[in-house]
Amino acid sequence: MGRRSIHTPDELRELIIEATTEIVEQVGLEGLSAREIAKRVGYSPGTLYNVFENLDDLLLIIEARLLDELAGRLASTDAAGPPADRLRRLVSTYFSFTQERPKLWNLLNEHRMPAGREVPEWYQQKVESLLAPLENALTPLLNNSDPAAQKRHARTLWASVHGMTSLSTADKLAGITAHSGRSLVDDLVSTYLAGLERRCPAH
Amino acid sequence: MGRRSIHTPDELRELIIEATTEIVEQVGLEGLSAREIAKRVGYSPGTLYNVFENLDDLLLIIEARLLDELAGRLASTDAAGPPADRLRRLVSTYFSFTQERPKLWNLLNEHRMPAGREVPEWYQQKVESLLAPLENALTPLLNNSDPAAQKRHARTLWASVHGMTSLSTADKLAGITAHSGRSLVDDLVSTYLAGLERRCPAH
Repeated sequence: MGRRSIHTPDELRELIIEATTEIVEQVGLEGLSAREIAKRVGYSPGTLYNVFENLDDLLLIIEARLLDELAGRLASTDAAGPPADRLRRLVSTYFSFTQERPKLWNLLNEHRMPAGREVPEWYQQKVESLLAPLENALTPLLNNSDPAAQKRHARTLWASVHGMTSLSTADKLAGITAHSGRSLVDDLVSTYLAGLERRCPAH
Repeated sequence: MGRRSIHTPDELRELIIEATTEIVEQVGLEGLSAREIAKRVGYSPGTLYNVFENLDDLLLIIEARLLDELAGRLASTDAAGPPADRLRRLVSTYFSFTQERPKLWNLLNEHRMPAGREVPEWYQQKVESLLAPLENALTPLLNNSDPAAQKRHARTLWASVHGMTSLSTADKLAGITAHSGRSLVDDLVSTYLAGLERRCPAH
């Protein structure tokens, strides 16, 4: 009894999203259950399923917010100075963001849609939008190489950095990367950019 | 009745490992349960827990075999020719291996030890041993840069490639990388090596 009448449906939706985010942030996806969420918001698990059809939909919303937040962080990264410096700052922003709430970031890697359900189109678009600032920063460094190559280089760099952040936020491979998550990312960007300079020399 | 007396404990252990590997290969970690394993080997779930204390121990054994198999594959990769070619072949072997049984490979990323249990020391050593051939192939390309830098470069390359293989074997980011898992890896190695050449010029 009690809280059932206190919240509007929109408020309740928001409460559930916040509580779920908090749980994932604290204990990771494996510690998440409808029961635990319900307990935190003070409603019954049944109420949860009145608001969200299933946990997957709820998790996708949280992932979407995380991707939006990172996109916002990248968009507000200082764009001054030479393109290589800009790129370094973007990658550094990306990496730092993932380390702030590692378990929440891991959600992107750990949460799989159940068999038969596709990841929605908007999700792919949000991931794609993380690539845009990298691509923009890379373009001036690529000295007129063709657009396909530009896209590939941005994806290579993104996939490498993304892979490193995931290794760094997962516990299992910590022995290899713990001392060096950031130093590996720095080395990657420096060496990759030096390589681009060599492969795409200015005319 | 029936099979209970047919197998020795060692045989039963092996049967369980094989059935579990098969399930993960076919449907991934999320489709795995003690019940499903027991069904495939024709014993009761209780028998399973006589042989393995818990699923985590069983999964670690499967992961260990996977890492050993990959280490073997790397060790038998053609070591002839210039170091850059050797490195390219190693990375290509690594990538191909992960794509053969993508869901099984994902196990390495998806399986987390329960809270309070550490990943055993031997596990880290096995992962570390995947780095050795990369490090050996890189060394001649690094023209006497210090050993710490050599270790870092090997880890950067490995973490990048590993991250890409994981993106490529996971379904969720397929929109970004599907057309290009291998081409991203190729681009990474070529550009990274070109960058090393520039950063560590021969004297």
